[in-house]
Amino acid sequence: MKTLGIITEYNPFHNGHLYHLCKAREITGVDYVVAVMSGNFLQRGEPAIINKWARTKMALNAGVDLIIEIPFVFSTQDANGFAFGAIKLLDSLQIIDYLCFGCETDNLDTLYSIGNFLNIEPQKYKDLIVCNSKNGYEFPKARSQALCEYHMIFGIHGLEKISSSELNKLLKYPNNILALEYIKHLLNLKSKIKPVAIKRMGASYHQKNITGNISSATSIRNEILNNLSSSKTDLFMLNDKIKSTIPSSGFPVLEKELREGRGPITLDSYRQYILATLRRMSSEDISRIHGVTEGLENRIKKASLKSYTVEQLINSIKTRRYTRTKIQRIILHLMMNLYKEDITIFNKCGPLYARVLGFSKKGKTLLRTIKKKSSTPLISKLSNYLRQIISEENNNVRNRLIKMLDYDILATDIYVLGNKKAEDRVARLDFTHKIVIKKD
Amino acid sequence: MKTLGIITEYNPFHNGHLYHLCKAREITGVDYVVAVMSGNFLQRGEPAIINKWARTKMALNAGVDLIIEIPFVFSTQDANGFAFGAIKLLDSLQIIDYLCFGCETDNLDTLYSIGNFLNIEPQKYKDLIVCNSKNGYEFPKARSQALCEYHMIFGIHGLEKISSSELNKLLKYPNNILALEYIKHLLNLKSKIKPVAIKRMGASYHQKNITGNISSATSIRNEILNNLSSSKTDLFMLNDKIKSTIPSSGFPVLEKELREGRGPITLDSYRQYILATLRRMSSEDISRIHGVTEGLENRIKKASLKSYTVEQLINSIKTRRYTRTKIQRIILHLMMNLYKEDITIFNKCGPLYARVLGFSKKGKTLLRTIKKKSSTPLISKLSNYLRQIISEENNNVRNRLIKMLDYDILATDIYVLGNKKAEDRVARLDFTHKIVIKKD
Repeated sequence: MKTLGIITEYNPFHNGHLYHLCKAREITGVDYVVAVMSGNFLQRGEPAIINKWARTKMALNAGVDLIIEIPFVFSTQDANGFAFGAIKLLDSLQIIDYLCFGCETDNLDTLYSIGNFLNIEPQKYKDLIVCNSKNGYEFPKARSQALCEYHMIFGIHGLEKISSSELNKLLKYPNNILALEYIKHLLNLKSKIKPVAIKRMGASYHQKNITGNISSATSIRNEILNNLSSSKTDLFMLNDKIKSTIPSSGFPVLEKELREGRGPITLDSYRQYILATLRRMSSEDISRIHGVTEGLENRIKKASLKSYTVEQLINSIKTRRYTRTKIQRIILHLMMNLYKEDITIFNKCGPLYARVLGFSKKGKTLLRTIKKKSSTPLISKLSNYLRQIISEENNNVRNRLIKMLDYDILATDIYVLGNKKAEDRVARLDFTHKIVIKKD
Repeated sequence: MKTLGIITEYNPFHNGHLYHLCKAREITGVDYVVAVMSGNFLQRGEPAIINKWARTKMALNAGVDLIIEIPFVFSTQDANGFAFGAIKLLDSLQIIDYLCFGCETDNLDTLYSIGNFLNIEPQKYKDLIVCNSKNGYEFPKARSQALCEYHMIFGIHGLEKISSSELNKLLKYPNNILALEYIKHLLNLKSKIKPVAIKRMGASYHQKNITGNISSATSIRNEILNNLSSSKTDLFMLNDKIKSTIPSSGFPVLEKELREGRGPITLDSYRQYILATLRRMSSEDISRIHGVTEGLENRIKKASLKSYTVEQLINSIKTRRYTRTKIQRIILHLMMNLYKEDITIFNKCGPLYARVLGFSKKGKTLLRTIKKKSSTPLISKLSNYLRQIISEENNNVRNRLIKMLDYDILATDIYVLGNKKAEDRVARLDFTHKIVIKKD
């Protein structure tokens, strides 16, 4: 019995994801597929276009057997923090044999060598990053550049056949960056999970317009948003262009959510809350939030006063050094009061539980195996679980656990305030929403 | 040269206000009228239906000569705190001869005797309030009841001809309560301002539907809100029923504001901000906010989770003891992070400045006189004033001043987020909006 693990956001689930899933099954010949998926807020610092349960349904319909939520405090971190949370979570299940990820190259040896280098992180490489950051480069660029420079000067073990400019090109793709972080953390954890790279098909990650049956999630989201603003009726119908990019098993789920006003959710859905919160907070308060580095608090405060959309807000804060995604992540953490000191603690311990979002019939078998093999608590009913952990004797463990869970619960409580229908805005859905179960 | 002072909210300015204005001029024979007016947030714990500058314009058009803003920290307090701020502000101008207020009785002797009693506040009366509060009565009722009981047992000086039940009836009207608070604070300050009671005409304060040319502000606001929800076009037209209750000099101002989407503003205009903020705050954080008395923080927190409108939120918190207006005030203070300790400081010092919202030609003369006679700084241009007070040597005075002003500025920054058009949501209007000047 072999099991595949994947790290996903499925925002929304599209043909590219389906291709990845089929290809991964084909290559590994596994019997089961487990996905760890971001909840309502994502790695790029945005809310998901539809909520986590609908996205779970789309994934189950496409053949994933079990879906576990990546806790908010990891799903909204940068590539390193996100990968750490996702890998640690997958590894802790103790049943995963392979990790398949999509990237622009399928040369695993190259990825391995770089991942290994990133895990070792020699002092001279770290110095180069600091030096490049001082030159005003945004962090991802400063890091890539340092990597290339190090390779040029000292050479990286295993990359003898690759030039510095080839390396530079490889580091330009967000999916490659994530893949490298996955490998780095697998190595760091000495995990038994075997990484498998699957070359991406169809449109590139950055593609803004729909180009074919396999189109980027970005282009699909854009098309959904355009479709919405041009629609004059209350009945939300998705156009054929969008339909052609989504598997037929998932399309009705997406359409239903949008028709019922539970999407498309964007950061601007929280415009009033974000702007009012920032206008009210002092720069000093803002500086305590995770991701706010020195001086940025004043920029954020100032921008909140002159902006009246979230787009304007982001554009006013953005500089060469602070990327859009970094700022979006900060906005999420501001919305949630996620402080620097909390992240420091969470990044030491990793995910402390595995919350089940949904499973298929086969997934049920998996759950039994996880329960036997893994020491990470598997949460299916939140209220039961909370009752149970009150008896945990170690105060530190208990408090950390409750705090991590509280962020997930609050994330949903805030997320639902973007829904159109009043009754869909009620809180505590993490307690009342049922796990998504696929029966056949 | 005689000057009349009035304490107002003008939400919006209507025929009843005009009647009050004419009657007050007639009785006192004054040359000038000065109004101190709540800014964007009001004593009943609600945002004003249109902003303070538009309401200023309506008042100037109707013949008020000078309008001064009651600082947020006083305008959103209970009757006692509101009256204290308003009376102290009026008195500090050093040019006011009369204070005219509308109430259900014009028997000034009776009001005086009660006001005097409230100012003295014998210990036995205070004990009776505590006793009634313990019986679960909301504070205003506990206080009225204590007053009647005291009168019945010990007798109140000057009220010999009034029975306890007549007194009870008199205390049922919010405008009488406010009038008593005004008199109490005038006496307490040993003010030279002479109070004049004007019996209210037309509809009662609590009237919910428009009944004639003089209708309650509540009924006019209700009609505006109903009119809005039934309007199917983008063009906002007010119906004739509303038109008949508003002076013709002010009607176009009101209509323009509503047509351009700067109203009608209600607490529910801030639904997302209020609900998200409460869901995010811990009960402990909530308990620090002004007005939150013991145990109420848990009720508020719980209500925020099950509510999806502000109306639901208020209804879930409300009890016999905690009135709707008290809860609405708490919601405002939550939106603004107005803490208990801040109010304690502000209630010791009173308003520290007089901010001019607008003036007529005659009002300009008044401003010159105030500048000569009053030691309270008169603010017309906020940025100039802030530059000036940086040089204030007493740290305590400077900090208090800046803090009080900061709440006014923030109140507007939050208020504008209820506007329909994006560009009307920009912040810092207190710095950029011009004083309203009536030239003829």
